[in-house]
Amino acid sequence: MSNLPSTTRRYYLKSKPSAQLTLDHYELREDPIPALQAGEVLVKTLLVSLDAANRAWLQGATYRGQVGAGTPIPGLLIGEVIDSQAPHLKVGDIVDGDLGWQEYGVAKAHHLSKRAPIEPLTHLISLQGIAGRTAYVGMSHLGAPRAGDTVMVSAAAGAVGSIAAQLARLAGAKVIGLAGSDEKCNWLLQEAKIHHAINYKSSSLMKDIAAVAPEGIDLYFDNVGGKILEAALFLANNRARIICCGAVSQYDTDGSAPGPRGVPGLIVVKRLNVQGFVVMDYQHIYPEADKRMSEWVQKGELVVAEDILDGFEKLPQALIGLLAGENIGKRIIKL
Amino acid sequence: MSNLPSTTRRYYLKSKPSAQLTLDHYELREDPIPALQAGEVLVKTLLVSLDAANRAWLQGATYRGQVGAGTPIPGLLIGEVIDSQAPHLKVGDIVDGDLGWQEYGVAKAHHLSKRAPIEPLTHLISLQGIAGRTAYVGMSHLGAPRAGDTVMVSAAAGAVGSIAAQLARLAGAKVIGLAGSDEKCNWLLQEAKIHHAINYKSSSLMKDIAAVAPEGIDLYFDNVGGKILEAALFLANNRARIICCGAVSQYDTDGSAPGPRGVPGLIVVKRLNVQGFVVMDYQHIYPEADKRMSEWVQKGELVVAEDILDGFEKLPQALIGLLAGENIGKRIIKL
Repeated sequence: MSNLPSTTRRYYLKSKPSAQLTLDHYELREDPIPALQAGEVLVKTLLVSLDAANRAWLQGATYRGQVGAGTPIPGLLIGEVIDSQAPHLKVGDIVDGDLGWQEYGVAKAHHLSKRAPIEPLTHLISLQGIAGRTAYVGMSHLGAPRAGDTVMVSAAAGAVGSIAAQLARLAGAKVIGLAGSDEKCNWLLQEAKIHHAINYKSSSLMKDIAAVAPEGIDLYFDNVGGKILEAALFLANNRARIICCGAVSQYDTDGSAPGPRGVPGLIVVKRLNVQGFVVMDYQHIYPEADKRMSEWVQKGELVVAEDILDGFEKLPQALIGLLAGENIGKRIIKL
Repeated sequence: MSNLPSTTRRYYLKSKPSAQLTLDHYELREDPIPALQAGEVLVKTLLVSLDAANRAWLQGATYRGQVGAGTPIPGLLIGEVIDSQAPHLKVGDIVDGDLGWQEYGVAKAHHLSKRAPIEPLTHLISLQGIAGRTAYVGMSHLGAPRAGDTVMVSAAAGAVGSIAAQLARLAGAKVIGLAGSDEKCNWLLQEAKIHHAINYKSSSLMKDIAAVAPEGIDLYFDNVGGKILEAALFLANNRARIICCGAVSQYDTDGSAPGPRGVPGLIVVKRLNVQGFVVMDYQHIYPEADKRMSEWVQKGELVVAEDILDGFEKLPQALIGLLAGENIGKRIIKL
């Protein structure tokens, strides 16, 4: 017991960002680690998941309560149990949980999921974490493209989009990925092996999409909202489906932007179906998702992009950079 | 044959309205009636349906081609066959069709539907016309509220909404109707017998709705888009459904207004499903719709509101007035 830490570093939200998130909104504190109660474990953080949703949580109005000023910043992580007062978790177990940006933390065992270690361990955050499972639930389970469909994916070089785009390709669809740099577009074509990649920062976005999809779009996997969702509405075929997975274009703002033109007019005349989802509602799908995606990875048909940064103190800037679109694939902090 | 007319009056679109429709956009002409070819009939117009969709057709971007300047104004009507060169339609038959704003017209028999006359004949346009069938398909077939659901209907005193709101009541739902005048709200409470009616022109619309539906909205039947759709997104419960039937708030404009705030953010976090539809895709449902709604009418459980105006020359102003919200129930021109 003598080697166990007595304090932990932990990031707090210093003030609520009214617009763009900056380093001034964070505060690093050193907190004492309380003694374990029955049913609790002490978890050493190994990997922290960086998600655009982190920013949305700070804004409020999501599937979890808003993170107020002065409270710890939440976040998903993979950790190792280093002390236990819980019968079902022992020292050395690997767990995932929503424990926040801290090096060590006490948690109730029933708030954690025990995970079988896999190689590499980072896949517990990317492929078999929220990112990969969100891609699978949104694309393969809800979107369910058919062979020959034309599928468009936004933020296609991001953690979720990079997998969702490949899942559409594996379903036999023609896949158009939108991303924010030429480097990302190259990755989409050469590594993810989808059919078309378009830099959404182009001034002629709608024409660029129409040029590669003159047949129209049957399924749009939306991570971003805003102008790209608007373009999808205008280019959608009759009876097209739109799967709404996120609204990253709105997260790092005050949240008051108007919606896309064409709502609801184009939804009516094109008989569109728009479905929002939150992956946590589909935990019963996780085993299927993990199994099928791992098989594709082993066969070399699905590549997992990870953007791994070393060091706890990189967390604040890593989220800001993620919101600015720095990463290809899943951004992970390794402690 | 000698009593048959040789000419007909017919309204044309003189110029495309760039914003609000006015009388200047119409032109009345007298056209010769051509001789019937094989397979054609001559139809005398009895009743013309006035629809917000008439205005949308002039704007383009709907499920039919845009109506250009110099072309006849389309419109749904009920007519009587007064001459026939078609084997399956005889003089005296009652038909419906999309023949436009004319007193007489030649049409191919296969473009018309023969209708069994009912009493009153206007029900072929209201209850058993596009309006009633749209309400049934959208509310009873697609929305399918369950007993105890809270259902909100916009344009609830209009042709479609007045029936949709009652269908939700008949399904056992708590029904909130939005309408544009106190007179309409009174009608909704006293005649349509729904639970709450709110004047959407109130400056505190969101609060007014929340006050009568603190439990949140499970199903929203949207006829209008705009601010009311936005309010519905903010007041929707998790997993609520939105049935998009029309976007009348956008029709009498240049069509470039932004969409409601909350798209797609609220669609994601509330796991909403948004379904657009066009009634013509559901012709297989019409017999069921006609039968069930007629039974409710006979039992006195469903009231049919009609706003009948006499005279062909009233058509232009009648559409302008409809777009301004003059009518309760289905507006019909009787020739």
